[in-house]
Amino acid sequence: MAYDAIWDRPREECGVFGVYDPQAAIAETIYYGLFALQHRGQEGAGMTYTDGTRMVTESGTGLVMDVFPRLPAGTTRVGIGHVLYASPDVVAADSVQPIQGRTGIGEISVAVNGAIVNADVLRERLIADGAIFRTPTDAEIVLHLLARAAGGNMTERLKAALVELDGAYSMVVMTADALYGVRDPQAYRPLCVGRTATGGWVIASETCALDAVGATHIHDVRAGEMVRIDADGPVYLPFTTPATGRKLARSVFEYVYFARPDSVIDGLSVYEARLRMGDILWQECGFTGDIVMSVPDSGTVAAIGYARASGIPYTEGFVKNRYMGRTFIQPTQAMRERSVRMKLNPVAQNIRGKRLIVVDDSIVRGTTSKIIVRLLREAGAAEVNMVITSPPVKYPSYFGTDFSQHETLIAATHSTDEICTAIGADRLHFLSQDGLAQALREVPTEEISFACFDGEYRTPLPKEEHT
Amino acid sequence: MAYDAIWDRPREECGVFGVYDPQAAIAETIYYGLFALQHRGQEGAGMTYTDGTRMVTESGTGLVMDVFPRLPAGTTRVGIGHVLYASPDVVAADSVQPIQGRTGIGEISVAVNGAIVNADVLRERLIADGAIFRTPTDAEIVLHLLARAAGGNMTERLKAALVELDGAYSMVVMTADALYGVRDPQAYRPLCVGRTATGGWVIASETCALDAVGATHIHDVRAGEMVRIDADGPVYLPFTTPATGRKLARSVFEYVYFARPDSVIDGLSVYEARLRMGDILWQECGFTGDIVMSVPDSGTVAAIGYARASGIPYTEGFVKNRYMGRTFIQPTQAMRERSVRMKLNPVAQNIRGKRLIVVDDSIVRGTTSKIIVRLLREAGAAEVNMVITSPPVKYPSYFGTDFSQHETLIAATHSTDEICTAIGADRLHFLSQDGLAQALREVPTEEISFACFDGEYRTPLPKEEHT
Amino acid sequence: MAYDAIWDRPREECGVFGVYDPQAAIAETIYYGLFALQHRGQEGAGMTYTDGTRMVTESGTGLVMDVFPRLPAGTTRVGIGHVLYASPDVVAADSVQPIQGRTGIGEISVAVNGAIVNADVLRERLIADGAIFRTPTDAEIVLHLLARAAGGNMTERLKAALVELDGAYSMVVMTADALYGVRDPQAYRPLCVGRTATGGWVIASETCALDAVGATHIHDVRAGEMVRIDADGPVYLPFTTPATGRKLARSVFEYVYFARPDSVIDGLSVYEARLRMGDILWQECGFTGDIVMSVPDSGTVAAIGYARASGIPYTEGFVKNRYMGRTFIQPTQAMRERSVRMKLNPVAQNIRGKRLIVVDDSIVRGTTSKIIVRLLREAGAAEVNMVITSPPVKYPSYFGTDFSQHETLIAATHSTDEICTAIGADRLHFLSQDGLAQALREVPTEEISFACFDGEYRTPLPKEEHT
Amino acid sequence: MAYDAIWDRPREECGVFGVYDPQAAIAETIYYGLFALQHRGQEGAGMTYTDGTRMVTESGTGLVMDVFPRLPAGTTRVGIGHVLYASPDVVAADSVQPIQGRTGIGEISVAVNGAIVNADVLRERLIADGAIFRTPTDAEIVLHLLARAAGGNMTERLKAALVELDGAYSMVVMTADALYGVRDPQAYRPLCVGRTATGGWVIASETCALDAVGATHIHDVRAGEMVRIDADGPVYLPFTTPATGRKLARSVFEYVYFARPDSVIDGLSVYEARLRMGDILWQECGFTGDIVMSVPDSGTVAAIGYARASGIPYTEGFVKNRYMGRTFIQPTQAMRERSVRMKLNPVAQNIRGKRLIVVDDSIVRGTTSKIIVRLLREAGAAEVNMVITSPPVKYPSYFGTDFSQHETLIAATHSTDEICTAIGADRLHFLSQDGLAQALREVPTEEISFACFDGEYRTPLPKEEHT
Repeated sequence: MAYDAIWDRPREECGVFGVYDPQAAIAETIYYGLFALQHRGQEGAGMTYTDGTRMVTESGTGLVMDVFPRLPAGTTRVGIGHVLYASPDVVAADSVQPIQGRTGIGEISVAVNGAIVNADVLRERLIADGAIFRTPTDAEIVLHLLARAAGGNMTERLKAALVELDGAYSMVVMTADALYGVRDPQAYRPLCVGRTATGGWVIASETCALDAVGATHIHDVRAGEMVRIDADGPVYLPFTTPATGRKLARSVFEYVYFARPDSVIDGLSVYEARLRMGDILWQECGFTGDIVMSVPDSGTVAAIGYARASGIPYTEGFVKNRYMGRTFIQPTQAMRERSVRMKLNPVAQNIRGKRLIVVDDSIVRGTTSKIIVRLLREAGAAEVNMVITSPPVKYPSYFGTDFSQHETLIAATHSTDEICTAIGADRLHFLSQDGLAQALREVPTEEISFACFDGEYRTPLPKEEHT
Repeated sequence: MAYDAIWDRPREECGVFGVYDPQAAIAETIYYGLFALQHRGQEGAGMTYTDGTRMVTESGTGLVMDVFPRLPAGTTRVGIGHVLYASPDVVAADSVQPIQGRTGIGEISVAVNGAIVNADVLRERLIADGAIFRTPTDAEIVLHLLARAAGGNMTERLKAALVELDGAYSMVVMTADALYGVRDPQAYRPLCVGRTATGGWVIASETCALDAVGATHIHDVRAGEMVRIDADGPVYLPFTTPATGRKLARSVFEYVYFARPDSVIDGLSVYEARLRMGDILWQECGFTGDIVMSVPDSGTVAAIGYARASGIPYTEGFVKNRYMGRTFIQPTQAMRERSVRMKLNPVAQNIRGKRLIVVDDSIVRGTTSKIIVRLLREAGAAEVNMVITSPPVKYPSYFGTDFSQHETLIAATHSTDEICTAIGADRLHFLSQDGLAQALREVPTEEISFACFDGEYRTPLPKEEHT
Repeated sequence: MAYDAIWDRPREECGVFGVYDPQAAIAETIYYGLFALQHRGQEGAGMTYTDGTRMVTESGTGLVMDVFPRLPAGTTRVGIGHVLYASPDVVAADSVQPIQGRTGIGEISVAVNGAIVNADVLRERLIADGAIFRTPTDAEIVLHLLARAAGGNMTERLKAALVELDGAYSMVVMTADALYGVRDPQAYRPLCVGRTATGGWVIASETCALDAVGATHIHDVRAGEMVRIDADGPVYLPFTTPATGRKLARSVFEYVYFARPDSVIDGLSVYEARLRMGDILWQECGFTGDIVMSVPDSGTVAAIGYARASGIPYTEGFVKNRYMGRTFIQPTQAMRERSVRMKLNPVAQNIRGKRLIVVDDSIVRGTTSKIIVRLLREAGAAEVNMVITSPPVKYPSYFGTDFSQHETLIAATHSTDEICTAIGADRLHFLSQDGLAQALREVPTEEISFACFDGEYRTPLPKEEHT
Repeated sequence: MAYDAIWDRPREECGVFGVYDPQAAIAETIYYGLFALQHRGQEGAGMTYTDGTRMVTESGTGLVMDVFPRLPAGTTRVGIGHVLYASPDVVAADSVQPIQGRTGIGEISVAVNGAIVNADVLRERLIADGAIFRTPTDAEIVLHLLARAAGGNMTERLKAALVELDGAYSMVVMTADALYGVRDPQAYRPLCVGRTATGGWVIASETCALDAVGATHIHDVRAGEMVRIDADGPVYLPFTTPATGRKLARSVFEYVYFARPDSVIDGLSVYEARLRMGDILWQECGFTGDIVMSVPDSGTVAAIGYARASGIPYTEGFVKNRYMGRTFIQPTQAMRERSVRMKLNPVAQNIRGKRLIVVDDSIVRGTTSKIIVRLLREAGAAEVNMVITSPPVKYPSYFGTDFSQHETLIAATHSTDEICTAIGADRLHFLSQDGLAQALREVPTEEISFACFDGEYRTPLPKEEHT
């Protein structure tokens, strides 16, 4: 699910992980946890760990395995980690997290997944007030707020800092002897808590990271809830921010393509949700054909669901090259289509003469869909029927999911029929918003943000962004 | 399909690629070709290219994308490339190819996929005769033979060199103005030729590399055939080696798991072959259950085939973490099972209470199968029925496929029932040798080596290896 | 004059450099300036430069030439630089300067040579007040003070910051359009100003850096004076610190061994000062012998002076290996003497049978002197008479000159005769404090700190250091 | 004595070192030996060592300390090393030595100091005969000759190889259990043997390397002599080459500037030889003045000699910046003189108003001398009288000392008076050839090559070089 330059849509977000475990080699735990969250960000990785005496942060650009060719020995008790997704216009080396600093109550480290919408305002205010920044990260804003917060203990400082932060985020924070997890009051980003076999606790963006460290999933952090874990175990505390009281806004995209299918988010299995998307798509459009295939990997589960519901056999129509990363050489314009072909090679004998049902997760700009349709036609497809596991994306996202420019969204200005013509498909169906809500039925519909589809933003943007 | 330390069987071989194309940026062509062959080797990559004036070799350890963060500009006409699979006991940095050297008829470069069984004898003879080696590669042996061969032109030298070489190999060789491809007289390793859109030619281990560079597949190099491509186009020439006249010995493992499913080898689609393996497995064992799943990725196509034949629904039982490489930190013994879990996380709600048909490609030592069965049981499987797309591996391979030690092969000393008990499965079925032959029906059965299953080796080993 | 692990005394301090020159390629100017100051610190180097639009800092460990294999193009107007001397217990990578940060009045960068004695107090106070530190440098303390200072312009902020700083330092500070140089009110460290051929200005620790960039020496910054250079040229301003009003305390060690002999500090040529030290040594002790030699390099000029005064011929007794650096492999205990021999190889035919007058700059712990005497005796010296260009070091230095521990100073507990015996010399003479003062006669004696010899410290240490 | 781009003459040659010492940590011995020979080459360093089981070569570009940040442990018995001087047109990375290879009698390694004049002929013949080269070094030619030599033992092979080699060289060669040193039949390059404190033996280019490892100098290898050292100790053997029977041709430049002054070459102390050059210069020219100074470092000893003979005081007129290396940024044309000034800063108060006697080692192109004179005049010199410790260089050197182009030698086309005018000096005197011979009086004059001064080459050049 790596982002790459030939793709026309966002592929991931960041991931956070934390551990409090006096009995474990925590660097190892963080490593395995981050590794399981690698799909959320491949541009950088980092961890802060402590042995009770000293707190150390190591981070770098690239995959977890590249950043940590070997692990520090002898670590124990508290640690946090982060995997970084960086949009192409960001220098990943500047943005790796966690961000550690020494404050009046000792060393602190912070890692954030998400977007603080009033970041610019806060940063300028802090600078005017004498703060010196060394990174462009939101995590450093949090660190400065913590360093300057009044109050004698960390919990109070954290609450005082959170009062300032508006936006969509989950974060982990550590001191030398305590671990904190925070989920924003609108629950934009997932965060869960698990218990380790050695009697410790872990916090992670997704449950697949709990599985990876052999931990049992015990809690989904609630909207506007902070968990503090120290020698006394976890305590769950409410906190207040500018977003307190607004409607919840759980991200529908976690289910559509961000999260790993083996994760369970807020009580709903991602795999199950995608199976249902395929099922409902079949109910909605009833497209028939000879085979159901997917654009791998995010369309695969839904394709299996569509096949199961429709009785049309599931077949792999593309073989995906798994060795593609961010460092991929930029193709010349002439090589662009060849590049897509490199990543997705049609299996000709599965395609030739067949009427295809092709399941993909979304259409943003439409350019990749157009190439995909052409590849399938060149491989001899008799029909290319596209079914999409999300509604048309008509409104930009402002929270780090990258399709932030209204004018590039094909669905903002084209009807479904027009898009179908533009990408060259025979038929095209988008999952309806109601259908999507039904696929996610365990999650109350009013708690989910569908803003990219219906424009109903649940967080007001800061004024300077509107001009 | 990356090899990793927790796996108990070989995952790949090397791959070779060559291009003769006066109109193209050949470094780019080689890059895309190697990238498509990356599944055959991730330990190293290299290319030799020329612009007609100067021949240059660049190579290094790691993935194609890591070795070539950018490409040399202005290259044209002739080039070869190689991706390296290195067994864990080899220093990859010493073994990267191609190997280039200056000879009496100019600069030459060589890349080999395979194993020359009389390599030690040849190397010692060459050293006794004054040759100085700088690598342990078979390619350097070929280079020395070429440098010392009598005869005024390259084609004669190459024939003279090949007379000496016994073994299982495909290779590419280049001079400043010609490209050669060679496939051994028993056809152990695949090799094919394609035509580029710019009127040039490419040679590759698999057709997926032809697809990647937009080339049309025009020829499968025959057993004991050499192709020479220069300004006059391709010429196909026979040659003689110690293996000439022996029975053909096409590798069954290319179809079982080495090759990419979108490749077509010697006229048979790998995807089609695997679908049939699943179909025939169902016919042979008739195991029923609630879902068919695979051990990804090599068992997936056969699982789809089994599902289609049996009517049992295909479901993904494991989510595979795709970010695992050779540099993975060696797990402590205590973390070993967790490491497998990191790579393969069961999708609990697909497993729980279900009777599973689990399709895998082979059982070599049995240790990983045992862990896989346990993971599935822990996730709540009601039954774990294993079906394997190849017969029991009872005899070691001597040609670079890594399971060369007889004593570690569980099937060498255990019956199928005993293996089933050892790995903890409910039922276990291996595809029969006849069934496998039938799955590969377009390839004459007498041309295929089943030596690992029936012990009928088609190449005598050099004497010193027998002692 | 590189520090090395086999030496028993400090060899250098840091060096600072600044330039304001709209007409010059300032990165080049800084490079040449730092290169000329390289003897003051070899552990790291860095520079901040600007083109009026953007301010950038580059720094790293090692020599100027290693840190800057090539220079940024197109820089102009303002820049500062620093060479780092780091004591062995410091991680040089953490301490490289300048330190740059964004403040309420824009980007600022700071480089400091010296020691701020109340650094710990200030740092703790700033941290308690919410400041986050990323380095252990004094420069970052200054940066935080500047970021938090009240007042609308940089000059006022700098004055406000300086009010807080006690200690021995010279520093350079830059904004996007102005350069500042600051010398502490007791003038511990040198700082001078020069005019470039292109009409700009430079500030440097020593005049040899002015020579290196072709600048003319126009001013020695006075005690407690700040120079601001911008489009209007230089302005000299007084400022106040806790040290204001205390006795001046120019460092005698700049003349004895820190500074380059071709520098002129506060009106006195270092070369001339050292020549006189040799002359006065001869007048004081009258040691006769066959040759005068030095422990290179810092004893060489005084040895020439001694030879000239005494009429005894000057000869090189040691050849010094010039390729020794900080990365030198730590010798095993058994190899320690061989290591000194590597650095200093006696020229046997100059030594054998001769009565030597050996000039060295100081004796701190005595261990190296002992090895030096032994090497000379092994080479056949008939007599080894040591003359030292400074008085016995009886009191520790608290300002970064590294011999900060009282118990390791041999002269603190031994008489000259006892030291002579301990190091194995035939005779030993230390330059008297009066003799040293006379050698520096252009500098008023009451302005010079002789604290390491007589214990009269001119700066009170902060309270917590006394306990 | 580092070569740098602003200098107009060669500054060094390569250096070789070898050790046979069953009782010592030989990597450490080689390291210290190479470190002492660092002045002979700073572009690269390498060593081959063995523990009796395995032979390993490590090498790289840069200084000994950079190439070996740490040493391999547990090495013993046999090893060789090399420091590389590379002319600016050579890629140092390709030329680092030793060169190791596996031959019919086991692993061998070779390091060469010097120039094999028939290298091109030999290389082409070997390539035509099937040899494959990987470096442009002469050492690899020797290795190929050894690999191909007939004969059952190493000594015979080495003799057979040497029969082919014409030129000016000293070399060290090792097998797993023996060390060889070879000096060409005309003794162009120095080579000496020492005994270590642990009962082993070392071979080195200069005696300063023996001192550095605590070895006693026991032998100067004779012209056309090979030393073999193994468990039986050293054996000295004659050998034959195309040069056998020609006149000896010891290099005068070793004494003039190549060698370290603390070395003793063929019975003559380099320091003593240079002192005498100064003495004889005074006798020959009788130039009077106020001070004698040198262009450091190679002119310094002769300047002391001149001062002692003339009674004119010796003073340092330049301070040399010791931190300049090959990686020095190439100055723009406009910065060229500033670059010289960076390296050599005049000590103004020693120069101003003085009549100077300036001692330098040679004048090749004259460009640097011209800058030096100008610098001194700018510093206020009343007179600049240059005295040179070698005769005018009128003929090019063909043996790696770099001034190989006749047209660039100023003395080839100008008289001494014309040169004096060209460089802007008041007076100029070159040491006469007789005077130089007298300074080297312990070495028979007929054994010394003065070819660069009188054109009497003692080795015929290969035919293709004459055209």
